[in-house]
Amino acid sequence: MGSEFFTSSRFGQCVSLNSLRSYLAEFISTFLFVFATVGAGMASRKLVPATTSDPSSLVGVAVACAFSLSTSVFISASISGGHVNPAVTFGMAVGGHINIPTTIFYWISQIFGSTAACIVLRTMTVGQHIPAYPLPPEMTGFGAAVLEGIMTFGLVYTVYAAGDPRRGNFGVIGPLMIGLIVGANVLASGPFTGGSMNPALSFGAAMAGGSFRNQAVYWVGPLIGAAVAGLLYQNVMRPSGSPGDPSRGGVSEVGV
Amino acid sequence: MGSEFFTSSRFGQCVSLNSLRSYLAEFISTFLFVFATVGAGMASRKLVPATTSDPSSLVGVAVACAFSLSTSVFISASISGGHVNPAVTFGMAVGGHINIPTTIFYWISQIFGSTAACIVLRTMTVGQHIPAYPLPPEMTGFGAAVLEGIMTFGLVYTVYAAGDPRRGNFGVIGPLMIGLIVGANVLASGPFTGGSMNPALSFGAAMAGGSFRNQAVYWVGPLIGAAVAGLLYQNVMRPSGSPGDPSRGGVSEVGV
Amino acid sequence: MGSEFFTSSRFGQCVSLNSLRSYLAEFISTFLFVFATVGAGMASRKLVPATTSDPSSLVGVAVACAFSLSTSVFISASISGGHVNPAVTFGMAVGGHINIPTTIFYWISQIFGSTAACIVLRTMTVGQHIPAYPLPPEMTGFGAAVLEGIMTFGLVYTVYAAGDPRRGNFGVIGPLMIGLIVGANVLASGPFTGGSMNPALSFGAAMAGGSFRNQAVYWVGPLIGAAVAGLLYQNVMRPSGSPGDPSRGGVSEVGV
Amino acid sequence: MGSEFFTSSRFGQCVSLNSLRSYLAEFISTFLFVFATVGAGMASRKLVPATTSDPSSLVGVAVACAFSLSTSVFISASISGGHVNPAVTFGMAVGGHINIPTTIFYWISQIFGSTAACIVLRTMTVGQHIPAYPLPPEMTGFGAAVLEGIMTFGLVYTVYAAGDPRRGNFGVIGPLMIGLIVGANVLASGPFTGGSMNPALSFGAAMAGGSFRNQAVYWVGPLIGAAVAGLLYQNVMRPSGSPGDPSRGGVSEVGV
Repeated sequence: MGSEFFTSSRFGQCVSLNSLRSYLAEFISTFLFVFATVGAGMASRKLVPATTSDPSSLVGVAVACAFSLSTSVFISASISGGHVNPAVTFGMAVGGHINIPTTIFYWISQIFGSTAACIVLRTMTVGQHIPAYPLPPEMTGFGAAVLEGIMTFGLVYTVYAAGDPRRGNFGVIGPLMIGLIVGANVLASGPFTGGSMNPALSFGAAMAGGSFRNQAVYWVGPLIGAAVAGLLYQNVMRPSGSPGDPSRGGVSEVGV
Repeated sequence: MGSEFFTSSRFGQCVSLNSLRSYLAEFISTFLFVFATVGAGMASRKLVPATTSDPSSLVGVAVACAFSLSTSVFISASISGGHVNPAVTFGMAVGGHINIPTTIFYWISQIFGSTAACIVLRTMTVGQHIPAYPLPPEMTGFGAAVLEGIMTFGLVYTVYAAGDPRRGNFGVIGPLMIGLIVGANVLASGPFTGGSMNPALSFGAAMAGGSFRNQAVYWVGPLIGAAVAGLLYQNVMRPSGSPGDPSRGGVSEVGV
Repeated sequence: MGSEFFTSSRFGQCVSLNSLRSYLAEFISTFLFVFATVGAGMASRKLVPATTSDPSSLVGVAVACAFSLSTSVFISASISGGHVNPAVTFGMAVGGHINIPTTIFYWISQIFGSTAACIVLRTMTVGQHIPAYPLPPEMTGFGAAVLEGIMTFGLVYTVYAAGDPRRGNFGVIGPLMIGLIVGANVLASGPFTGGSMNPALSFGAAMAGGSFRNQAVYWVGPLIGAAVAGLLYQNVMRPSGSPGDPSRGGVSEVGV
Repeated sequence: MGSEFFTSSRFGQCVSLNSLRSYLAEFISTFLFVFATVGAGMASRKLVPATTSDPSSLVGVAVACAFSLSTSVFISASISGGHVNPAVTFGMAVGGHINIPTTIFYWISQIFGSTAACIVLRTMTVGQHIPAYPLPPEMTGFGAAVLEGIMTFGLVYTVYAAGDPRRGNFGVIGPLMIGLIVGANVLASGPFTGGSMNPALSFGAAMAGGSFRNQAVYWVGPLIGAAVAGLLYQNVMRPSGSPGDPSRGGVSEVGV
């Protein structure tokens, strides 16, 4: 009866075995994504310490980000939906694909995963610095938030498109596409905003690096961009006959 | 009866709900593609301002272009056919896959999407310059148009091949392949023509950058290349028994 | 009766409509592959003329090669088998997947496609030089042929694996995998042998560049490597119950 | 009767025709992977001999590693399971997907393949040095082993996820994902640990280079990381109703 209570109540769904497995999957995927992305930034800084960045370092970070995000989405897609990003989870919640308590547990898992990855990197590479996301002098916080918002819009729109039932077999390469659009946008925005599109990534790097300057940019922009993408795709891009299609176990659906 | 008129007439098809959704999909996809591609050019110029370009900047722009085009085609493939390029739309029209009014609305959507992306980039990254497509002194306009035409031929041929019904499961990776061939050709042509293969991309950059020099190169070359590819694939490469196959919802077919 | 003769004889099969379409597909695919690969070499040489090559130029050429070969195989896979390389055609002939006359017509198509691409590049980029494949002083012709042979073995083995009926759905990404292994080996062998793995590529560059030095290296090595891969995969790696499976229209099978 | 003995006993399974084919597939795949990865390191060292490494060399090695591992897993996936790495084989053994004698034969095949590739590279590129995996002064062996262990955890977790029966069609891109996560981690760890994640790779390079310094780092870390990933995925991430599913011929399953 206790078990019945747990599985029938909304909070109970959040602590069921499947749910706990989802949170762990989000923790692991976010850990692995942040490990590779932040690690690539530290590696290029170790190779070229004098300059803040050079074009080939930017290519390295963007490729690491694209490749690791593709894989991180892939390995958790059929367990937790493969969000790996609080903004994606928010965009899914706005479209009605995930409830509020689950959203909160996902956020906690993602933020812990990111912070753990940054702390492990800092501890194991003695004397290395976690690269923060400093804005260049000419960038305004507003401009950076707009750019981050637009890029996160593109990410969440792609997540929705990958889970669109009209897509059929195309969805097979969905996790790859999600990684590629983010990698492309790191190349576009690296010297301007740092190219985060992920509040957990920025938060973890700030925790390990000890500086929360401009943190708001990496929360406000991505969350608004994600919400717009979720509302637009859910209400406009999907044909009226297919309202959300929650039964399909695609990338955009959460298995809890 | 008005509704009947609208859905039965050719112009009516162009303003149906599905059609408007297609135009919006083309606008969004072209916006996201141009944002990442032009942004990557601006980012590398910010990192290495002295030289016009260096090999790793070229790699960065080509990778951003390949990754963002793959995703942009992917996210609109099942809504608008995933053209993201007036030359591709023209190549589809030449092969009979899309009618003239729809072609015009697609062009408008793509050009608006590209221009909007360039203006947002210029506005938000205060003081940055939109890179134009200057031809090096030794290149003739004719030579540049021929190179752009050949590369656009390759792009449109790939779009047709991705939608070929003989391909079966292979078509799953079609959007990726479309991005990769364009990325490869950016690496091949960057220092010679800029590697556009997309009139909307060149037009948007010219609008935001304020210089329309050599603009004709990026319209005449790609449109002719696209037309040749469409005619060749439609009439020669497809076996006679499968005339166009308009019922299949592949990359090369438009859902309007 | 004449028609009957042509379709029933072995030579007749080589000039049927389907066969002519195959040759055209090989011509176009090889043209597009060589255009992007040789073009990327010319582009990086224009950007960094002083040095023979630098690491980021090598990355650019390897990425252009990987991306364009993936696409070139993809667009011709269901028409001609997607060889794009005389060594691959030879490896297929050794395994019994294509007859001798067809092999010869494929070779002619591939060599013409490669030569045409190099001549167009040289003509349109006035004053640019087609990069030859010079061996560094310490490399012997024998050593270069062995390296080219091993890398071509890997390519042809991958082509066979992509067409293996046991692979099932995995074969979907076959064309991508074929491009990636060649791109990886360009990164491994660029400064040692130039990383060709393709006699048509080396021949076309030599025709347009006017120097046939070391040409034998790029024929003997790849052809032997391809033959070993074909014999090994056909006779050892396939289980005895599935002898060749010529009815399956996969990458390794020719549609003629 | 002797034949019956061989096929019914556990040792007999290890020398059956299918098993021998598996060992050969692992040998060839590991050879090709190590050839491209170590070759890319040698190539970039030849281009930039003065510095130990620069960012674009790191990009080159990471891309070669990602591309060649994807292909190496792809070509052996349906024959041997596509391990190409003693740590992956160990992780599969820990999860009960492969027995101990087979594990030993796989290890031998992988180590021979890697060593052969390094020796061929050293012999054919006269006077070139096989790059060892030296740790920078500030790195401890413990820190390097932890980083290598975490990255190998990510690799083996991805291998398990690619073979997860819940994944359905997603598994099609499994071999690509396995290569991409390793490539991303090479970018993250190159200047800190060398980014091996593969005891056979480190052993082969050490054999050909003649220095076994820090070899333990590349065995202890990866093997522990692989074991943790195998135990976690097998016991926690899979739903209780699907215990291992040994009948499915996916990436994580061995065909012997």
